[in-house]
Amino acid sequence: MSESKLSEFDIIERYFKRPVTGVDIGIGDDAAVISPTPNMQLAVSTDTLVSGKHFFADTDPYKLGYKSLAVNLSDMAAMGAKPRWVTLSLTLSENLVESHPTWVSEFANGFLELAQTYQIALIGGDTTCGALNIGVQIIGEIEIMRCLRRDGAKPGDDIWVSGHLGGAALALKHLLQEIKLTQHEMDACLRALLTPTARVELGQRLVGLAHSAIDISDGLLADLGHILTSSKCAAVVTLEAVPCSTVMKQYMPSSLALECLLAGGDDYELCFTAPKKNRSEIERIAQLLQVPLVIIGEIKHGTGLSVIDTEGKAVTMVKKGYDHFAS
Amino acid sequence: MSESKLSEFDIIERYFKRPVTGVDIGIGDDAAVISPTPNMQLAVSTDTLVSGKHFFADTDPYKLGYKSLAVNLSDMAAMGAKPRWVTLSLTLSENLVESHPTWVSEFANGFLELAQTYQIALIGGDTTCGALNIGVQIIGEIEIMRCLRRDGAKPGDDIWVSGHLGGAALALKHLLQEIKLTQHEMDACLRALLTPTARVELGQRLVGLAHSAIDISDGLLADLGHILTSSKCAAVVTLEAVPCSTVMKQYMPSSLALECLLAGGDDYELCFTAPKKNRSEIERIAQLLQVPLVIIGEIKHGTGLSVIDTEGKAVTMVKKGYDHFAS
Repeated sequence: MSESKLSEFDIIERYFKRPVTGVDIGIGDDAAVISPTPNMQLAVSTDTLVSGKHFFADTDPYKLGYKSLAVNLSDMAAMGAKPRWVTLSLTLSENLVESHPTWVSEFANGFLELAQTYQIALIGGDTTCGALNIGVQIIGEIEIMRCLRRDGAKPGDDIWVSGHLGGAALALKHLLQEIKLTQHEMDACLRALLTPTARVELGQRLVGLAHSAIDISDGLLADLGHILTSSKCAAVVTLEAVPCSTVMKQYMPSSLALECLLAGGDDYELCFTAPKKNRSEIERIAQLLQVPLVIIGEIKHGTGLSVIDTEGKAVTMVKKGYDHFAS
Repeated sequence: MSESKLSEFDIIERYFKRPVTGVDIGIGDDAAVISPTPNMQLAVSTDTLVSGKHFFADTDPYKLGYKSLAVNLSDMAAMGAKPRWVTLSLTLSENLVESHPTWVSEFANGFLELAQTYQIALIGGDTTCGALNIGVQIIGEIEIMRCLRRDGAKPGDDIWVSGHLGGAALALKHLLQEIKLTQHEMDACLRALLTPTARVELGQRLVGLAHSAIDISDGLLADLGHILTSSKCAAVVTLEAVPCSTVMKQYMPSSLALECLLAGGDDYELCFTAPKKNRSEIERIAQLLQVPLVIIGEIKHGTGLSVIDTEGKAVTMVKKGYDHFAS
């Protein structure tokens, strides 16, 4: 059988079936069988990546495999859960498999290497034929009633953000030829876009310290907005406090930079809120994990999200965040 | 906001978020949170339906919603698991949403009504924009080490099949204009194709009685073949024993009928093997559930799958089963 005429069974067996632990029955039966740890809850999430919408068709398959898992890990991070098991639904075009015979193995390597980093088991796979579509479902474990939720923010909470924002959006603008980055700038931004670091350990350490959390996938304002809506609160964010990468700083405060920083998706950093009394403990975690964590604003009574500058003047934004079906 | 410009959040909120039980946090956070029953294992499976491959683009969305869940229920049935929770990754084309404004609500109704029948909670949803693609992930519960596996068949086992085979394949041949069924025949066959009944309760009752099981999604020979490969056994099947619907009987023994009966996919009946001593108990279950169960052959030592007629002559077949990537 040639590489270009792979059967579904071969694809799963050849590229995705590797020795795993923590699994009673893995790939190869009608379902996988797993034994959750006693006295834990499960966090379950799914995220799909579609060609032409979430990535360019010619994206390096290794990085695409990596990112497909990373964005799902990020959901676990936002819940404070420990990711354990993952399934993959891969829809591949025949054209892709024929024109790029190593695509599947490269994709699998990116996906499985990241899985191994976190000791996550790929327990089920479904491959089918059609427009390229990557569906990942992830299951994590959390102590009972200890997860980080969107609806727990309280007035007076600090609003924290991890890492730096906007890099992925800048890379995308470059790829769309809306701006021109230098090679050096592009390298830094592309890492954010293609191989984001999910804040898995940070999320778990924030359990008991943060009142609410979300991962920034649709843009800071949109995702913080979800916390506010769920928690029935308002927020004020200080623009200058929002963490910019070195590349981003050069573009500030242009409207393009504001858009990337506040409304750019795909950052996969965590935004969380916590009472002021937990500041020193959170700063200790930042040190321990070597993850930048900064306070960007405060949760208030009421509704709405205001971004102000250091003089207290409102910053106006047109685009709020990424929505797959918005016009 | 008009129906044709739905946002991702609206789609989930409006059509898929319904009151559910057995869920600690449902749709609307970064992940759902569930509490598995203590001392149970989990069965996890995923199945994807792609437009133009698994269904015609103009398929009734209610039935498509129903079937998307049914095929996943069928995997739970094949494990003997009780389905509990499900997530849905729905990739929708803008064109579909605009040209058929009620498509999503009809799809959701079909999906959720079947979910309610089995008291399964939809706990997570991801909607995105692209070529129509329906990914469903299902989680069920089973008693520890009691699940039905593919690799447990033993020489001497009876091979059983539930229901009738080939109806879905006949309907497909009609839709592809390879044959012409009467309206009455088509109604019966279309039910098999579009709204198959997953044998969920049967699967659970076979725990402890069957040595192995699989659901027939790719065709009897292909799926029984999976049992044989996993169990390192051979099998002999008697053609006349394979259960035909009334419609199918009229076409027997044409090569078309043989193909539909033995290699037609999409039946979602169960094929299982059990020791002869369990015959009467299995027949009692058939009575109780009002599900036809018949013995079609026997597991043997060795390798390979033979189909013979009542005179013991080998029946030859060209096409073995459905494979998404086969040429």
